[in-house]
Amino acid sequence: MDNNLTGGVPLAMPLNVLERNVNKIVMLTLKDGRTLEGKLTGFDEYMNMILEDTEETKDDQVRRLGTVVLRGNNIVTIVPK
Amino acid sequence: MDNNLTGGVPLAMPLNVLERNVNKIVMLTLKDGRTLEGKLTGFDEYMNMILEDTEETKDDQVRRLGTVVLRGNNIVTIVPK
Amino acid sequence: MDNNLTGGVPLAMPLNVLERNVNKIVMLTLKDGRTLEGKLTGFDEYMNMILEDTEETKDDQVRRLGTVVLRGNNIVTIVPK
Amino acid sequence: MDNNLTGGVPLAMPLNVLERNVNKIVMLTLKDGRTLEGKLTGFDEYMNMILEDTEETKDDQVRRLGTVVLRGNNIVTIVPK
Amino acid sequence: MDNNLTGGVPLAMPLNVLERNVNKIVMLTLKDGRTLEGKLTGFDEYMNMILEDTEETKDDQVRRLGTVVLRGNNIVTIVPK
Amino acid sequence: MDNNLTGGVPLAMPLNVLERNVNKIVMLTLKDGRTLEGKLTGFDEYMNMILEDTEETKDDQVRRLGTVVLRGNNIVTIVPK
Amino acid sequence: MDNNLTGGVPLAMPLNVLERNVNKIVMLTLKDGRTLEGKLTGFDEYMNMILEDTEETKDDQVRRLGTVVLRGNNIVTIVPK
Repeated sequence: MDNNLTGGVPLAMPLNVLERNVNKIVMLTLKDGRTLEGKLTGFDEYMNMILEDTEETKDDQVRRLGTVVLRGNNIVTIVPK
Repeated sequence: MDNNLTGGVPLAMPLNVLERNVNKIVMLTLKDGRTLEGKLTGFDEYMNMILEDTEETKDDQVRRLGTVVLRGNNIVTIVPK
Repeated sequence: MDNNLTGGVPLAMPLNVLERNVNKIVMLTLKDGRTLEGKLTGFDEYMNMILEDTEETKDDQVRRLGTVVLRGNNIVTIVPK
Repeated sequence: MDNNLTGGVPLAMPLNVLERNVNKIVMLTLKDGRTLEGKLTGFDEYMNMILEDTEETKDDQVRRLGTVVLRGNNIVTIVPK
Repeated sequence: MDNNLTGGVPLAMPLNVLERNVNKIVMLTLKDGRTLEGKLTGFDEYMNMILEDTEETKDDQVRRLGTVVLRGNNIVTIVPK
Repeated sequence: MDNNLTGGVPLAMPLNVLERNVNKIVMLTLKDGRTLEGKLTGFDEYMNMILEDTEETKDDQVRRLGTVVLRGNNIVTIVPK
Repeated sequence: MDNNLTGGVPLAMPLNVLERNVNKIVMLTLKDGRTLEGKLTGFDEYMNMILEDTEETKDDQVRRLGTVVLRGNNIVTIVPK
C-alpha cells in the first residue's frame, strides 16, 4: 500500500477540474437548495466562484441573474455540463 | 493539462469582481433568506461588505435600511445589477 | 483592470465603518431572528460587539436589555441609524 | 477618518466587558434558545465561560444547574444584570 | 480598568474547571438535544471528552451507554453534579 | 498504554482508504440528504472529491449527473461499493 | 489548584480512547441522526474515521454498508461496545 497521497494511482485534484471548466457551463447546487447554471469565469482556493449568464432555479421558479459571485462555503456540488 | 491554477486559461478572481463593482449596485442573498440591494462601497478579504442606500426584501416585504455592514459568512450570492 | 484590492477605487473597510459608528445607535440583526438596537461602544476584529442601552425585538415583543456583549459569528447585518 | 482601529475614539473591547463582570450576575442566551443566568466566574479567549449558581430557562421552565461550563460558540448574547 | 485579562480579578479558566471535575459526575447537553450524564475521565484542549458509565436521556427515554467519546463542537453546556 | 497514535496497533488512515478507492465506485451521503454514487477519480486533503458517471438519489428520485466536484464539508459518509 | 492540564489528576485523552478501540466494535451517532455500528479500523487527528462491516440504523431501518469513511465533523458521539 502506497502511503503517499499522489503516489501510485494518478489522482485528479478538485481545483484542477474547476480550472478545466473555466469558460464552460456548470451547474451548482447551493446549501439553500437553489441551483445556479452559468459559465464559470473564475474561482479561488476557497472555491469562491464567478458565474456569468447565470440562471437560478428555486422551487421550479427560474430567474436570470447574469453575473454571480458565490461564497465557496455555500456550494455543495459543482456539475460541469 | 496545466497544473498551475493561474496558468493557461485567463482566470477572474471573485474578490476582483467585487472590486470592479465598488460604487455600483449589487443584490445580495443572505443565508437567512433576505435579499439586500444597495451600492457596494467596501469589502474586505473575508467578504465582509458595506452597502449604502440599501433596500431589504424579506418575504415580499421591502424596507429601506440605508448603510448596512454585512458579515461575509452570511452572504450566499452577490449579483451585480 | 487593477489587480490590487486597495488600488484604483477608494475602498471603505467594514471595520472602519464600525469604528465611525462608535457611540452611535446601530441596529443588529442576529442569526436567531432577534434584532438589537443600542449604542455601539466597542467591537474587536472578530466583530464581537458591545451595545449599551439595548432594546431587543423578537417576534414583535420588545425588551430592554441594557449592556449586551455579542459574539460576532451570530451577527448577520449591522445598520447604523 | 482615522484608519487605526484603536485610534481617535476610545474603544471598549468585548473581552474587557466580560472581565469587568467577573463575579457579577450575567444572563446568557444560547443558540439552542435556552437562557442561563448566573455569576460569571471565568472565561477564556474563545468566550468559553463558567457560571456559578446558574438558573436555566427553557420554554418558560426554570431549572437550577449550579456550576455550568459553556462552549463559547454556542453563546449568542451576554447581558450583565 | 485593567486591560490584562488575567490581572486584577482572580479568573477561573473553563478548562481548569473541567480538570477539577475529572473522575466526577458531569451532565452534558449536546447540540442535538440529548443529555449525557457520566464520570468525566478525560478531555483535550478542543473540549473533546470521555465519559464513563454514561446514561443518555433523549425525549425522556433513558439508555445506558457505558464509555462515550464526544466531539467538543457538539457540546453546549457541562454541568458538574 | 501506547501514547503514540501510530504506535502499537496498525492504524489505517481515512485519506488512504480514499486513495485505495480511486477509480472505484463509491456512494457518498451528503448533509442535504442526497446520495451520490459514482467513480471516485480524485480528492484533496480537505476531502473535496471528484466523481465521474455519477447518479444522484434524492427522495427516491434518481438523476444522472456525470462529473461532480464536491466540497468536503458537505460529505457525511463515503462507502466504497 | 493545579494549573497544568496534565498535572495532578491522571487524564485520559479522547484520541487515545479511540486508539484503544482500534479493531473493536464502536457505535457512532452522526449529526444527521443516523447511527453506525462497525469495527473501527482507523482514524486521524480530525477524528475522521474508518469503520468495517458497518451497519447503519436510521429511523429504525437497518442497512449493511460494509466499509465506511466518515468525516469527523459529522460525528457526535463514539461508544465502544
